[in-house]
Amino acid sequence: MHTFLMILIMLNWEIGVGREPETFVPATVPGACQMDIAKSENYPSWQFSDNYKMFGWMEDVDFTYRTSFDKPVLKRGESLWLCSKGIDYQCEISINGVQVATHEGALSPVQVRLDEYLQAKDNVLKVVILKAPKRPGVPKGREEASYCCKPPVSYEWDWHPRLIPSGIWDETSLVIRKSAWIENTGISYELSDDFSSADLHVDVLTAGKVKGTSLRFTLLDAAGNKVFSRKGSDSSALGGVLENPELWWTWDHGEPYVYTYEVELLSSNGEILDKVTGQTGFRRVRLVMNTDSWAKPDGKVKTRSDAPAQIELNGRRIFAKGSNWVAPEVFIGYADQKRYNEMIDLGIKANFNIFRCWGGCAPSKDAFYDECDRRGILVWQEFPLACNKYPDDPHYLAVLEQEARSIVRRIRNHPCLAILCGGNELFTSWSGMDDQALPLRLLNKICYELAPEIPFNMTSPLNGMAHGYYLFKDGDQTVHQWMDEARCTAYTEFGVPGVSPREVLEKIIPEDELFPVGPTTAWAVHHAFYAWDGKPATWIDLETIKYFFGEPTSLDDLIRKSSIIQGEGYKAIYEEARRQKPHCAMAMCWDFNEPWPAAANNSITTYPAVPKGCFPSVSAACRPICSSAKFMKYQWTASETLEFTLWLLNDTFGKTPAPYTMTAILVAPDGTQTELQSWTTPSAADNENIQGPCVKTVLPTWDGACTFTVKVLVSGHPEMDSSYTLAYKK
Amino acid sequence: MHTFLMILIMLNWEIGVGREPETFVPATVPGACQMDIAKSENYPSWQFSDNYKMFGWMEDVDFTYRTSFDKPVLKRGESLWLCSKGIDYQCEISINGVQVATHEGALSPVQVRLDEYLQAKDNVLKVVILKAPKRPGVPKGREEASYCCKPPVSYEWDWHPRLIPSGIWDETSLVIRKSAWIENTGISYELSDDFSSADLHVDVLTAGKVKGTSLRFTLLDAAGNKVFSRKGSDSSALGGVLENPELWWTWDHGEPYVYTYEVELLSSNGEILDKVTGQTGFRRVRLVMNTDSWAKPDGKVKTRSDAPAQIELNGRRIFAKGSNWVAPEVFIGYADQKRYNEMIDLGIKANFNIFRCWGGCAPSKDAFYDECDRRGILVWQEFPLACNKYPDDPHYLAVLEQEARSIVRRIRNHPCLAILCGGNELFTSWSGMDDQALPLRLLNKICYELAPEIPFNMTSPLNGMAHGYYLFKDGDQTVHQWMDEARCTAYTEFGVPGVSPREVLEKIIPEDELFPVGPTTAWAVHHAFYAWDGKPATWIDLETIKYFFGEPTSLDDLIRKSSIIQGEGYKAIYEEARRQKPHCAMAMCWDFNEPWPAAANNSITTYPAVPKGCFPSVSAACRPICSSAKFMKYQWTASETLEFTLWLLNDTFGKTPAPYTMTAILVAPDGTQTELQSWTTPSAADNENIQGPCVKTVLPTWDGACTFTVKVLVSGHPEMDSSYTLAYKK
Repeated sequence: MHTFLMILIMLNWEIGVGREPETFVPATVPGACQMDIAKSENYPSWQFSDNYKMFGWMEDVDFTYRTSFDKPVLKRGESLWLCSKGIDYQCEISINGVQVATHEGALSPVQVRLDEYLQAKDNVLKVVILKAPKRPGVPKGREEASYCCKPPVSYEWDWHPRLIPSGIWDETSLVIRKSAWIENTGISYELSDDFSSADLHVDVLTAGKVKGTSLRFTLLDAAGNKVFSRKGSDSSALGGVLENPELWWTWDHGEPYVYTYEVELLSSNGEILDKVTGQTGFRRVRLVMNTDSWAKPDGKVKTRSDAPAQIELNGRRIFAKGSNWVAPEVFIGYADQKRYNEMIDLGIKANFNIFRCWGGCAPSKDAFYDECDRRGILVWQEFPLACNKYPDDPHYLAVLEQEARSIVRRIRNHPCLAILCGGNELFTSWSGMDDQALPLRLLNKICYELAPEIPFNMTSPLNGMAHGYYLFKDGDQTVHQWMDEARCTAYTEFGVPGVSPREVLEKIIPEDELFPVGPTTAWAVHHAFYAWDGKPATWIDLETIKYFFGEPTSLDDLIRKSSIIQGEGYKAIYEEARRQKPHCAMAMCWDFNEPWPAAANNSITTYPAVPKGCFPSVSAACRPICSSAKFMKYQWTASETLEFTLWLLNDTFGKTPAPYTMTAILVAPDGTQTELQSWTTPSAADNENIQGPCVKTVLPTWDGACTFTVKVLVSGHPEMDSSYTLAYKK
Repeated sequence: MHTFLMILIMLNWEIGVGREPETFVPATVPGACQMDIAKSENYPSWQFSDNYKMFGWMEDVDFTYRTSFDKPVLKRGESLWLCSKGIDYQCEISINGVQVATHEGALSPVQVRLDEYLQAKDNVLKVVILKAPKRPGVPKGREEASYCCKPPVSYEWDWHPRLIPSGIWDETSLVIRKSAWIENTGISYELSDDFSSADLHVDVLTAGKVKGTSLRFTLLDAAGNKVFSRKGSDSSALGGVLENPELWWTWDHGEPYVYTYEVELLSSNGEILDKVTGQTGFRRVRLVMNTDSWAKPDGKVKTRSDAPAQIELNGRRIFAKGSNWVAPEVFIGYADQKRYNEMIDLGIKANFNIFRCWGGCAPSKDAFYDECDRRGILVWQEFPLACNKYPDDPHYLAVLEQEARSIVRRIRNHPCLAILCGGNELFTSWSGMDDQALPLRLLNKICYELAPEIPFNMTSPLNGMAHGYYLFKDGDQTVHQWMDEARCTAYTEFGVPGVSPREVLEKIIPEDELFPVGPTTAWAVHHAFYAWDGKPATWIDLETIKYFFGEPTSLDDLIRKSSIIQGEGYKAIYEEARRQKPHCAMAMCWDFNEPWPAAANNSITTYPAVPKGCFPSVSAACRPICSSAKFMKYQWTASETLEFTLWLLNDTFGKTPAPYTMTAILVAPDGTQTELQSWTTPSAADNENIQGPCVKTVLPTWDGACTFTVKVLVSGHPEMDSSYTLAYKK
């Protein structure tokens, strides 16, 4: 939601350490205290080796932002405000030495009226940022964030260094307001059963001297034509029926048609006092029971059926393919529209139609949701709770309520919003929350009140859904075996690790440590070693690479081999999840992006927006319609009978795909191709996969090879071809 | 909550059929329209044979209650109200021909101010009761109640005839109110970690001319001593810390200590304008994760852990033993304190510490919760939703919200209240609701707002809990096998059918049909045949009786054999559930009581309050501490090795039970006793069961016998002895 007509006065900020700094240095707003200090003190790149540790002392100090300004001319009825979309995390605001506000919570707007305290010249505005909140008496790490609404990822994760940002992180300026203004706008609607009309409700919260004012609501189509307009003394008069709305679809199912809304607040004589505009769109999104979930459990002593995990978009049960979205910047104030757009563009290139915005990080800036609207990607948005036991404590609940209401109000009008969720992995032993936890019951209440039409889950996974696993090989099994054994309604997290591209590694690892790879400081703090679950070589997973392909001979060889593992692993999981449709309805890898340039981890892109070697495999596995081959294991031996089953994977509607002829081809290490079998599919129904024959062939003996390839070519449809690089052992 | 000081004017009501009856007959208030008409028309007993069908026509007519009264003297500031605790289900209220109110929902109080419409004499007050609500376009049965808050059981169940009550069903009178009055009072508190103090909050809603009034809150202990008192201009002043509160416990864990509270509304000159009094008590009740639930699921691809189902009372994890409570009367207006008290007394005799008040029926009258407080039985209270798909419809949600708020406000102060629950079996194929259903999200929200300290479940069962099974034998298995295979956190429903006592059968079955038993009308409508799941002989289950014990030779023989089956079945289930502690934390049979005198079903008492033959076995299986023997099957054959495992079942705390010596004895059909084995238990810890040795003996050949007995005697503790009647085959 963007506000117009108000006069914005941009400020030049400076910053210092402590509550009464002796010296101030220039501050970037929006930004982060830590970055301003680092810049002023000429810190070397915090992304290189373990330089980020230089920021450690900044956790436990306060910072003071300072700016000064002359009193602007205010017309009769006007007032002057400090308006910020976000200050991280606790602050005290003073003007000319008088404290006028305190605030806790980075995700709620801060609005402070200032004009009553002003002198004509050189008014001094200060924002004191309190040191990072830490729950006392707990070990260093994410649990320190378990009594506040600070994103816990900043306190260290298995792919994120300990770096706790703070400061003014979103748009902030002085604002001259007229006598009344608009606080927020909620647009809701019911689509008729046949989607031919939308019954609109508009809920506008105004403030100031609102007596005698009126409101005007206008809806514009994508071409800018006014298609709906109402005026009235309050928002109850702004609703009505819009005939023939264009529906919003994900890019893979139709057009992500976006409308623009305008709300104007008018004085009694027709003057426009305030105006807000934003994006909206028409879609009905539900979480419904997965196909066949009602049939289970069976038997005499019966528990409940699985929770619903099937997205129904505009009446269509769609398969959700996507990934887990985390913050694109450690210092989230530096995330900008350009970054969001290039990342979302990569999401489209990966053939994703959903992002799960993970609760360990903060929700995104407005630009993210705007672009997801426009590009047609669904958003599963979590509140900032992850892997902790958040308490039933009154103060925590009050801050959570404020933050959650702000988040829902800010994003509820976006058609991309598909699911609201309490947070990540809260119903697990390492978190310790359950269905009775008051923070989650509170979030249900808030979402019910502000956006009842959006599905709400307390956490992920719920029963039937699954998280895990996060390696390609463990013990005697690879992803092929455990995915074949799993039968989940939704795979909302799964990971396969891979090494980052050379261009990233060169920026973060000292040159003399680049190869051979070992658990040096630079590799370790960039999560190649000792990062996860007590295992020494995560996420670089050298053992698996060596097991299948032998010792890497160079950095490029390592990256190539690691990328094969990561690409083939993700391909196996995405394709198997799709084969389990319709019981399964979602597949989202852990994770899409990262704010920290890891040397190795589960993401499919590396900071800032670099696709990793596995990226093309992920993209291929998520094509709306494609050929597929199911292998029950990864490594095959000379003279062994190679077996795999052919599949047509089809998530499309309305195409009534013609029969396709697929040919399975064995590609020897020297490139020799042998045609194994052809299969002509029957016609597929909408959204229907088709299982084909099992192809069998005795593998020849190849010398000096550790891989071979199976291709599945689709006659006349090269865009549906698939290719699998498998491990070979003589 | 009871109101004093207001002047109540009792009315003589009469009733007629239709909106403008030609004739009126005397009405019993509280009561039911149907019973008044039946009485006036001299209907025969509706419980006998299929006489209840005579009530069928009354579903589809309106009824009109009428009364007349002279205007009472009202002092300055006083007003006259019609106050009803409950009118079932939709009504229109008029005074002297002027419609002054309409109402929907039997569970919310109705309050209508009348004095503005009165003449001096012969004011005519009418209450038109609308015909029974039925969702159009659905088959006859419970689904007709799926769009309203009417208890669905009335529309027919497998143990309840189709009889839909309506009318004024709870206390109703004219009330003279002073200038202001108390609408409701909520008492909440946090107990300190060591339970040594309670931080009280009192929330009083007042109405009328409240300006200048003040409130006084007083707490009295069980002896009537004032232990806490506060006065203030609003309820925020009424709270404070109570030191050393006596804790409320279930009867089996301590004393159910009950306090009385009084709230007085005072005028500016100190006059008492209104006063309410009620019961409360101090306990902390939580649902926490069952022991070892966090350890599951295990593996690489993981869903969530089971939902919490372990009750923690005042910090003590207790095993919940009980039963499902349904309405004690079909025409619930006729339920009275005497009936509630005698039924609760039977619950104590059964060694139960919890009732699950099932969502297919309406919540009870106040007297029920008062007595559960006093006797120390926990209440799991469901909202009136069961086995239907209740809609996301705005009208339904509005009525549900009104009804749910009324229910929670009415019962929240009772210390017996342990769990609030959305309703019965809603997450199952035959209901079709899921976690996204707005009615359940709304109920969670309302409970969070009004009673956040009380655990809330959307439905039963949740994942890990179970319902079922409802027979003793099915196929080749008996309860022994399927309970051994089950591993649930809570068995919140399970049934074993049994025939009712002769005294009940004689009241409902024509004498010439009593024996031999067959699927006659009287047996069938009393649920002995064709009642459940397409099976012909439920609930009489003649096949099972014949299978183990041969053809019954008389009615008394049938009842005796059926009672053995039901008693041994329930004993096996309760004891196995207890053996599965601590993973399992609850066992509640389906069901405790019944409002309809069934010929056979799963209840352990028969209408009105008659213990069935199985009752002593249920009571024995639920003793806080007792011996137990686990059998893996029910029927044993001559020369076969009889095997069973000895157990000490111990749900007690603070007793540090001494070692016990148990002796297992085989009792032959002729009464000959053979000592098989003795076992001296180690000392048991609080709440700890102990598994003993497996006893084995080769069974002799007995002629002409179909049963034998195993006894487990506890030396010096006959109150802990157990006995099992098993089936024998030569």
